[in-house]
Amino acid sequence: MTKECVILAYSGGLDTSCILKWLLDKDYKVVCYIADVGQDEDFDTVKTKALKIGAHDVVIDDLKVTFIQDYIFPAIQAGLLYESRYLLGTALARPCISIGLIKCYLQHGAQYISHGATGKGNDQVRFELSCYSLCPSLRVIAPWRDPEFTLKFQGRKDLLSFAARNGIPVSATPSAPWSTDANLMHISYESGILENPANEGPSDLYTMTSNLEETPDDPYFLEITFKSGIPSSLGLRNNERIKNVLDMYMALNQIGGIHGIGRIDIVENRFIGLKSRGIYESPGAHILHTAHKDLEIFCLDKEIYRIKQNLSEKLSECVYNGFWFSPEADYLRNCTAIAQEMVSGTVKLKIFKGNVFVLGRYSDISLYNEDLVSMDRHADFTPADATGFINIHAIRLKEYYRYKNQRNKHQS
Amino acid sequence: MTKECVILAYSGGLDTSCILKWLLDKDYKVVCYIADVGQDEDFDTVKTKALKIGAHDVVIDDLKVTFIQDYIFPAIQAGLLYESRYLLGTALARPCISIGLIKCYLQHGAQYISHGATGKGNDQVRFELSCYSLCPSLRVIAPWRDPEFTLKFQGRKDLLSFAARNGIPVSATPSAPWSTDANLMHISYESGILENPANEGPSDLYTMTSNLEETPDDPYFLEITFKSGIPSSLGLRNNERIKNVLDMYMALNQIGGIHGIGRIDIVENRFIGLKSRGIYESPGAHILHTAHKDLEIFCLDKEIYRIKQNLSEKLSECVYNGFWFSPEADYLRNCTAIAQEMVSGTVKLKIFKGNVFVLGRYSDISLYNEDLVSMDRHADFTPADATGFINIHAIRLKEYYRYKNQRNKHQS
Amino acid sequence: MTKECVILAYSGGLDTSCILKWLLDKDYKVVCYIADVGQDEDFDTVKTKALKIGAHDVVIDDLKVTFIQDYIFPAIQAGLLYESRYLLGTALARPCISIGLIKCYLQHGAQYISHGATGKGNDQVRFELSCYSLCPSLRVIAPWRDPEFTLKFQGRKDLLSFAARNGIPVSATPSAPWSTDANLMHISYESGILENPANEGPSDLYTMTSNLEETPDDPYFLEITFKSGIPSSLGLRNNERIKNVLDMYMALNQIGGIHGIGRIDIVENRFIGLKSRGIYESPGAHILHTAHKDLEIFCLDKEIYRIKQNLSEKLSECVYNGFWFSPEADYLRNCTAIAQEMVSGTVKLKIFKGNVFVLGRYSDISLYNEDLVSMDRHADFTPADATGFINIHAIRLKEYYRYKNQRNKHQS
Amino acid sequence: MTKECVILAYSGGLDTSCILKWLLDKDYKVVCYIADVGQDEDFDTVKTKALKIGAHDVVIDDLKVTFIQDYIFPAIQAGLLYESRYLLGTALARPCISIGLIKCYLQHGAQYISHGATGKGNDQVRFELSCYSLCPSLRVIAPWRDPEFTLKFQGRKDLLSFAARNGIPVSATPSAPWSTDANLMHISYESGILENPANEGPSDLYTMTSNLEETPDDPYFLEITFKSGIPSSLGLRNNERIKNVLDMYMALNQIGGIHGIGRIDIVENRFIGLKSRGIYESPGAHILHTAHKDLEIFCLDKEIYRIKQNLSEKLSECVYNGFWFSPEADYLRNCTAIAQEMVSGTVKLKIFKGNVFVLGRYSDISLYNEDLVSMDRHADFTPADATGFINIHAIRLKEYYRYKNQRNKHQS
Repeated sequence: MTKECVILAYSGGLDTSCILKWLLDKDYKVVCYIADVGQDEDFDTVKTKALKIGAHDVVIDDLKVTFIQDYIFPAIQAGLLYESRYLLGTALARPCISIGLIKCYLQHGAQYISHGATGKGNDQVRFELSCYSLCPSLRVIAPWRDPEFTLKFQGRKDLLSFAARNGIPVSATPSAPWSTDANLMHISYESGILENPANEGPSDLYTMTSNLEETPDDPYFLEITFKSGIPSSLGLRNNERIKNVLDMYMALNQIGGIHGIGRIDIVENRFIGLKSRGIYESPGAHILHTAHKDLEIFCLDKEIYRIKQNLSEKLSECVYNGFWFSPEADYLRNCTAIAQEMVSGTVKLKIFKGNVFVLGRYSDISLYNEDLVSMDRHADFTPADATGFINIHAIRLKEYYRYKNQRNKHQS
Repeated sequence: MTKECVILAYSGGLDTSCILKWLLDKDYKVVCYIADVGQDEDFDTVKTKALKIGAHDVVIDDLKVTFIQDYIFPAIQAGLLYESRYLLGTALARPCISIGLIKCYLQHGAQYISHGATGKGNDQVRFELSCYSLCPSLRVIAPWRDPEFTLKFQGRKDLLSFAARNGIPVSATPSAPWSTDANLMHISYESGILENPANEGPSDLYTMTSNLEETPDDPYFLEITFKSGIPSSLGLRNNERIKNVLDMYMALNQIGGIHGIGRIDIVENRFIGLKSRGIYESPGAHILHTAHKDLEIFCLDKEIYRIKQNLSEKLSECVYNGFWFSPEADYLRNCTAIAQEMVSGTVKLKIFKGNVFVLGRYSDISLYNEDLVSMDRHADFTPADATGFINIHAIRLKEYYRYKNQRNKHQS
Repeated sequence: MTKECVILAYSGGLDTSCILKWLLDKDYKVVCYIADVGQDEDFDTVKTKALKIGAHDVVIDDLKVTFIQDYIFPAIQAGLLYESRYLLGTALARPCISIGLIKCYLQHGAQYISHGATGKGNDQVRFELSCYSLCPSLRVIAPWRDPEFTLKFQGRKDLLSFAARNGIPVSATPSAPWSTDANLMHISYESGILENPANEGPSDLYTMTSNLEETPDDPYFLEITFKSGIPSSLGLRNNERIKNVLDMYMALNQIGGIHGIGRIDIVENRFIGLKSRGIYESPGAHILHTAHKDLEIFCLDKEIYRIKQNLSEKLSECVYNGFWFSPEADYLRNCTAIAQEMVSGTVKLKIFKGNVFVLGRYSDISLYNEDLVSMDRHADFTPADATGFINIHAIRLKEYYRYKNQRNKHQS
Repeated sequence: MTKECVILAYSGGLDTSCILKWLLDKDYKVVCYIADVGQDEDFDTVKTKALKIGAHDVVIDDLKVTFIQDYIFPAIQAGLLYESRYLLGTALARPCISIGLIKCYLQHGAQYISHGATGKGNDQVRFELSCYSLCPSLRVIAPWRDPEFTLKFQGRKDLLSFAARNGIPVSATPSAPWSTDANLMHISYESGILENPANEGPSDLYTMTSNLEETPDDPYFLEITFKSGIPSSLGLRNNERIKNVLDMYMALNQIGGIHGIGRIDIVENRFIGLKSRGIYESPGAHILHTAHKDLEIFCLDKEIYRIKQNLSEKLSECVYNGFWFSPEADYLRNCTAIAQEMVSGTVKLKIFKGNVFVLGRYSDISLYNEDLVSMDRHADFTPADATGFINIHAIRLKEYYRYKNQRNKHQS
C-alpha cells in the first residue's frame, strides 16, 4: 500500500525539522515546501537538511515577485493597516505561501498539508483558511494542536533532545530569546522576553533597520509614482528611475533600512481573542504606505475617501484574521480598487532619521484646484454662499438648543 | 440713540485691525476679544493697538488651562485624528474661543459677533456654528464674506494702504509668504507659496519644532500615565513627575519641540469641498496621541476598540467641520468616554530625532494576559479548540468555493 | 438684443404658472419643460395652458422608461431605503428630471434653469445639485428663495389673485389641504393639515392604493425574477410572464394598489436639518423592495451582505440629499452593483390586505445548502468543531470576566 | 464518592428527555432546569416526567417578567433587528435562560451544564457563550456534539426506541414535520419540510397569530407611550391604560395575534456560516418595534439617529451570535441607551389585517418644529440661505466634473 503524502510548510528550523521527522515516523511520505518570500535564508542548506532527515522531496519556490505584486502592492493600494499601526507583513505572506502549498499539494497528489504554526497564534488560522478556500477537500495536520505531539514536545528542551536522538542538525548559535518571522516586507519579533509588554525590546533585536544612532546624518530624497494606487516607479536622487517591482522594493527596503525607517512596538489583538505584543520592522512598506496615503487624500474625492477608508479598515481585519481568500475580501478588494483608479501621481519624500517626510505631491489630473483654494483669487467662489451654508447647518444646532431648553423647563 | 455693539475676535494683525476700523466707520461700538490659547503674543501691545484704533474695550482672556482640559485632552482621549493625520489643533481652539466670545457678548449686551476668518476656510464655519449653538439668537458680521468689504479690500495692498490712511500701525517685519494659526497645541501654515502642493515647505517656516539637523543626539525618555484615557501625569528622566495640566503640556511641547516631533505636510479636504495644503507642527499633542493609542489598544477589548474607533473617526470629522457643540458631538463624546473608562496605565516613551518610540506599557488592571498568550505555558488554553474554530470559519469559505464552481458550470 | 432664455420645470399648477408669468414679466424667454415620470396628468391641457400664459415653447418629455430602468430599478437593486422606511420615490425622480432639463437647456442654448421648489424643502437641493453636476456653468432662478418673489407672493391668496389678474386659468376643484408629488413610483403627501404629526392622515387622501376595507378578500400570488439584483420578469397567476419594464412596473402598481400595499406615515429628517411629516404610497416599489431583500440575503455571502448594507445606507442618504450625480454616489453604485452580481433568482409572493408575504425563493446557483443545514444529514459538517469554535470565542469573554474581577478588587 | 452534578436545560421533549436518561446512565446526578419564558407548557407534567425518568431535582423558574424587562424591552429600545427583518425572539431568550441556569448551577454546586441544542445551530453558541461569560470556570456537556451520543442517536427513530426501552413517555400526537422554539416574544419554525426554502410554509403552522382570512374586519386602535425608548404604557380603545409590563406585553401579543401581526418567512445567516430558513411570528414585538422606530426618528437628532442606527445593527449581530453578555454588547447597550434618553412620547397605531399603521405621534419635548417646517410660516427660516447651502455643496460636484473632463482629455 502506498503511503499517504503530506506537504509540509518547512522552514529548516528546529520545530519544522522535528515535525518532519515526527511525520516520517508516523509513516507518511513528506514533501517539504519552502517558500522564498524574501527571508534571508540559505535555501540549499535547508534543502539538504530536509533530505537528510528523510523528506521525500523538497520544493523551493521563489515567490518574491508574486508576493510584491499580488499581496504587498495591493495592500499598499488598499491602505491596509491593522489596528491603526500594523502593516500586515506576516498576514500578507500567509495566503501567498498557501497558493504555493496548494500547487505543490496538487502536483504531488498529496492527502495532507502540515505546518508548524502554534495553537495560540494567527498563522495557523491564516494558513488553514487560505488552504481550505483554495481547496476545500484537503486535510490539515497541525502538530502543535495535536495532543499526541504536544505531550511529546512540551518545550524547547524536548525538541532539542528529539533532534539529538534523531540526528537532526541544530544551529550552533543559541536561539534568540524571542521568535521571528521574516520576509521581504518585514520581520516580526514576539514571544519569549517580549511577552512582558512593559519590557523594552533590546536594541540588538533589529535586523532590517539600523538604530538611529547609526543612521546617516544626511537625508535621502526620493520620489514615488503611483498608477491607480499601485507603485509604478521609484525615482532616486541620482535621477535613476526604477520600475522593476523587485528592484523597486529592494531599493526601498535598503534605503529605509539604512535610515532606520518603520519600527513599531505594539500590543495587538489576535483573531482568537488574545492580546499579544509584537515588534515589527518594515522599512519599504512604511515608506510606500506613507506616500500612498498622501497621494490618496490629494487625489480622491473627500466622500469617496471616507467610504474607501471604512472598507480599507474592514479589509485590514479580514487579512489579519486570515480571510485573504474569502467572499468579503474579494468584494472589498474590488471596491477599494475602484476608488484607486483616481489615485495616480507622484509623491516627493525625504527619508531621514527614522522619519518619512512628505515634501510635496503632484498629479496630471487631480481634484486639487489651486485657483479655487487660493486666498488671492476668487475663481468661481462666491464667499457670500458660505453664509447660507453656515446658516442652514446652524438650523439643526439651534433646534437642539431649543430642545435642551424645553427639556430643562420640563424637568424643573 | 445708542450704538449697536459688536464683539470682534481680534488678533492684532493687519486683517482684524482693518476690520476693527471698518466696523467703527460703520458706526458700531466694538469690543475686541483676544483669546490667549497659548500663542506667542505680546497681549499688552495688541491691546494698546486696538484701543488706539478706537475699540470701546479690549478683553484679554486666558483660556490656556480650559483649552487643555476641555478640548485638547478630550481630543486625545477620543483619539481624534482627521483624515488619518491631522490632530485638529486649530479646529479644537475654535469652540474654546467661541465660549469666550459668547461670554463677552453676553456680558456686554452686544448685538453682533465679528471675525476675520476668510470665506473659503473652515474657521468661519467653526466660529459661527459654535456661536449659534451656544446662543442661537446672535448675529454674525463676517466682513470677508461681505461684498462691501471684499470690494474695498481686494488684496493685501488695499489693507496696507487703508491701514496707512487710518494710522493703523503695521509690523515692520515683512509678512511671511504664508499664513499661520498658532496656539498651545500647534502652529499651522498655509496659503501663499504653500498653495502649490508640489513645493516643499521652507525649512525656516517652523517655529515650534527644531529641524532634525539641530536636534540633540541623545534621546529623551519619559513616561505618560493616563486615567480613563486622560493624561494624568508625566514622568521625566530625573524622576520628576508633573501633574499640573499646563505644566505637563508645556513640558511635552518643549521636549517635543527640541527633538523635532510632530511635523506633517498634508493636503486635506475642507468642509466646504475644497482641497487645501497645510503644514502643521504639534509636538506635545503628537506625543500624547501616540502614547494614548498604544495604551488604548493594550487596555480595550478588541471589539470595543473597533466600535470606538469608528465613533472616533466620526467625531474627528464633526470637530474638523465645526460641530464641536452639536447633538452628535455630545453623543460621540459620551460614547467614546465610556470606552475610555478602561484605559488607565502608563506608557514608556523614547523621544528622538522626530520619532516617538513606544518602549513598553503597563496597567494595574488590563486585558493583557501574559500567561494566556505565552508560548511556554498552556494556561487555560486548549490548542485543539483552534481546530474547531478554524473549521467552522472555513464552512463559509468552502461554500463560496462550491458557489463559484456552480457559477462556472452554469456559465459554460 | 435677444432675451435671455429660462428653462422652467413646469407642472401646470398654480405655483409654476405664476412663476412662468413672473419670469415673462421680467423679460425672459421661457421654455416650459414638463417631465412625464408617470404622474396622472393631461399633458395637452398643461401645454395649452403654458402657451396661453406666454411660454415660448413647451417640451413634454416622456421619461417613464428611463425613470424605471435608470433610477427605480437601480434603487431596488441597491436596496435603498431612507431612515429605515422611505423608498425615495420623489428623490429618485429629481435627477431623472434634471437630465431632461439639462438636455432641454442645451438644445435651447438657454442661460437659466428655474423651478418651483420651496426654500425649506429637499427638492430645490436635489434639482440644483443634479443640474450643477451635469452642467456646472448653468445658473438657477429659484423664485421661492428670491425675496422679490416671496414678498410679492406671501401665500396662496397672492398667487390666486395674481393668476386672476393675469388670466391664468385656475383649477375649479378646491385644492387639497396638503401638497403632493406624484410619479410612477409613488405619491407623497405633506404640508397643510399634515404638518401636525399627531393628526391622522384622512382616509380619502390616498390615490394610488385602496383602503384595506375595500381590498379584495382573495390574495394575489405572483413571482418576481431578478437578474443581478435587477427585476427581470414578473410571473402572474395566470402563468402570464411580463418582461417589458414599463408593463412590469405598471402591473405591480396595479396589483399593489388594489391590495392596499405600500402606505407609510412617517416623520423624516430633511437634508437642511428640519424634521417633516410625510405620507407616502408606493405599491409597486414596496413589492419589489420586499422581494429583493428576501432574495439578496438568500443569495449573498453573509459578510458581503453586511458590507453592502452599509454602503446601501450611505447611498440612500446621498440620494435623499440630492447627490445622485456625485463622486460618492457613482462609487457606491459601482460597489453595490458588484455585490448584486450574485443576486439572481425568483421570489414567490402573496399580496393580500396591505401585506407582501414572501412564500419561498429559489435560485439556480446559490449559497443556500440544504444538505449542509439539514438536521437530518451530517453532510460535511463535524458537530465537534462547534466546541472549539465556541471555546475560542469564549476566551475573550472569560478575559473580560477576569478584568472585571480585577477592577472590582482594585476599587474596593 | 459523590456523583458529579449536571444542570440540564430541560424542555420535556423527546430530545432532552433522552439526554436526561443518557446523563443518568453515565452516572451523573442531573438537575433539570426549566425556564418559563412564556411558552405554552404544562410545567407540572414536565416536572413529573423528569422526576420519573430519574432527575435528582427539577427547578421551574418563572422568568417572564425579567425576560420582558431585561431583554425584550431593551431590544426594542435599541431597535434590534437582525439582517433587516428578524426581531431576535430566540436569541434574546437564551441569555435570559442562561442567567437562570447559572443561578441553579451555583445553588446546586454543580460541575456541568448541559443542553439539547444541536451542533449546527445558533443556540448552542448562545447558551454556552452566555454561561462562560457569567461563570468562566463551568464545563458544558453538549450531547449533540459528542460522537458517543450522536453515534447512538442518529435520527428520531433512535430517540424513540431509546425512549420506549427506557420507559420515557412520548407524546401521543405525532410530531410536526418541523421544529419550533416558543416564548413570550415569538415562535420560530424551522427544519424538516421547511428546509427547502422554495416551499411555502403550511397555513396550519402558525400558533400565535391568526391567518388573515380569520382576522376581524374592524381595526383595533391603540396608543403606546415610551419613556427613554422603553415602553411605559399601553392605551387601549376603551381608554384603559396598562402599565404592568407583563400585562402590557400579553395584551399586545393578544391584539397582534388576533389581527395576524408579525409573521415573516426568511432565509438568514447563522453565526457558524450556514444559511437557514426560518418562519417567525412575533405579534407584540412587531407592534412595539414599529412604534418605537416611528417615535425614535421623530425625537432623535438626525445625526444621532444615524450613529445610533449603526450601533444598533452591530448590537443586533452580537445578540444573534450569542454575545449578549460581552464587552461589546455592554458597550453598545450603554451607547444606544444614551441616545434613547431623548425618545419619550406616544405613538398612535391602527392594527388591522396583518398591518401596523402609524397614525400619528406626539411628545412633550421634541425636535419636531411645526412652525419651522410649515409651508405657511417663515419662522426663523431665511429661504435665501438655502442658495448658499446648495452652492457650497455644488463646489465638490463641479470639481468632479472638472476632474472628469481633465481625465477624458488625458485619455484621448
